[in-house]
Amino acid sequence: MTEIIDTVDYVGGRTRLYGIVGHPIEQVRSPEMFTAEFRKREHDAILVPLHVLPDDFEATLPALMRLHNLDGLVFTIPYKVRACALAAELGAQARRVGAINALARGGDGRWRGEIFDGLGCVEAFRRRGIPLAGKRITLIGAGGAGAAVGVAIAGQGPRSMRVHDLDRSRAEALAARIRAVDPAIEVAVGPPSVEEADVLLNVSPVGMLGDARLPVDVAALPSRLVVFDAVVKPDRTPLIELATACGCPAVMGREMMRGQVSRMVDYFLAGGDLAG
Amino acid sequence: MTEIIDTVDYVGGRTRLYGIVGHPIEQVRSPEMFTAEFRKREHDAILVPLHVLPDDFEATLPALMRLHNLDGLVFTIPYKVRACALAAELGAQARRVGAINALARGGDGRWRGEIFDGLGCVEAFRRRGIPLAGKRITLIGAGGAGAAVGVAIAGQGPRSMRVHDLDRSRAEALAARIRAVDPAIEVAVGPPSVEEADVLLNVSPVGMLGDARLPVDVAALPSRLVVFDAVVKPDRTPLIELATACGCPAVMGREMMRGQVSRMVDYFLAGGDLAG
Repeated sequence: MTEIIDTVDYVGGRTRLYGIVGHPIEQVRSPEMFTAEFRKREHDAILVPLHVLPDDFEATLPALMRLHNLDGLVFTIPYKVRACALAAELGAQARRVGAINALARGGDGRWRGEIFDGLGCVEAFRRRGIPLAGKRITLIGAGGAGAAVGVAIAGQGPRSMRVHDLDRSRAEALAARIRAVDPAIEVAVGPPSVEEADVLLNVSPVGMLGDARLPVDVAALPSRLVVFDAVVKPDRTPLIELATACGCPAVMGREMMRGQVSRMVDYFLAGGDLAG
Repeated sequence: MTEIIDTVDYVGGRTRLYGIVGHPIEQVRSPEMFTAEFRKREHDAILVPLHVLPDDFEATLPALMRLHNLDGLVFTIPYKVRACALAAELGAQARRVGAINALARGGDGRWRGEIFDGLGCVEAFRRRGIPLAGKRITLIGAGGAGAAVGVAIAGQGPRSMRVHDLDRSRAEALAARIRAVDPAIEVAVGPPSVEEADVLLNVSPVGMLGDARLPVDVAALPSRLVVFDAVVKPDRTPLIELATACGCPAVMGREMMRGQVSRMVDYFLAGGDLAG
């Protein structure tokens, strides 16, 4: 007679809502990662996938943002640039990159946007205790993520930055953005040279999903070179394997991803206030 | 070096989305109940609270319904009547009651609406093996939920239905709806009489949340009377306690709620096709 009503413990009427907006949406990893981070911090919130079609973006987003229990949105492909228009205020990284991947509702009801792709990379280096100030950086890849990483690294006071992209105009555009962040950085555009670098950053898709290529044309790496690869699938790319074999410190894509999730949850819970 | 990225297993990029729309929203139980029911059926879906303010309803809902991974919505106070306008097709119960609490996206992209408050009650009786056909029914409460229960019970072929509400005009209006469902039912309006009934249904708020009153003015109940109480908080209302003490079969509010969740998930997974 006393039937039990089955329930789950991870979503209820008081749960605060977050979403990731993208097209397509099936491949995103944010729902499981952000929700785990909220849970770890004992904040009753969930991040769900929101599949918005390109033609619907401008009409749907303002309506979603009026949901009274929605506190933040994450943006992925192809919306990081278009999403800027939704923010009442843009953070320093977003203004430099011209894109956002996070939109947070402030305590005053204003929506603030920022991009964390690059800050996540910086956070990964910070957690590993590897300084970037005064270093010679070589960056491969100047697309959306590459630009965000380049701008964020530039904010750490490196001595020089060399930018390479198969599309030279993209590399030139990023070089200009880096100079705007800090005119003291020596900026160059051209193919990477591992001999003249302290830190090698791959933010190109080379090495992703069974691609056996290296983003640099070398057989070995100097062991003092710090190697970072933004690729997360697979976890150990050909570049990371070579770095490990050569005794180089290697920073992996998932460390950047974790750093990014952590910084973004800080941002969301502070209502779009970016400390540090 | 190989940091693990924490994740949860209950939401991801492929998770299908459902929502409950209401104002206020904190008190709703649908998120934990529906999500548990989806999980039990091994369907990767989650139902989240969507707090929509009354002034935003007409602008926000059509935009929400364009989310490509949203398959259905549940409506609660104060939106069950307004939500009818969102449906391209209304089910039989919804047309009779003039309200919906479920909106399902069909395989053809059309949205179908239906109300399950009453069907959940019928389902609770069915699961307990208690027939309603040919019975003399007394129904207390002719508000939104009472109307839905009255209309659904009327569809089961009872011999007679007596409807009582403190607001006599609401009772008269429900009596007319019951006659429209099945003209063969003897319908009356007036105070309940437990002696002349086989089934007593309380769908009024009497007995809720510490209210010590009974919805009928009696000291005892005939043991052959089947007693149903829609109240879920508390689980055992004064009416259910009296029924148990008198040896009456008692059907509880949470049985109706469970029947309703089950029927609604059937409806959602069938894209708004209501079998049975």
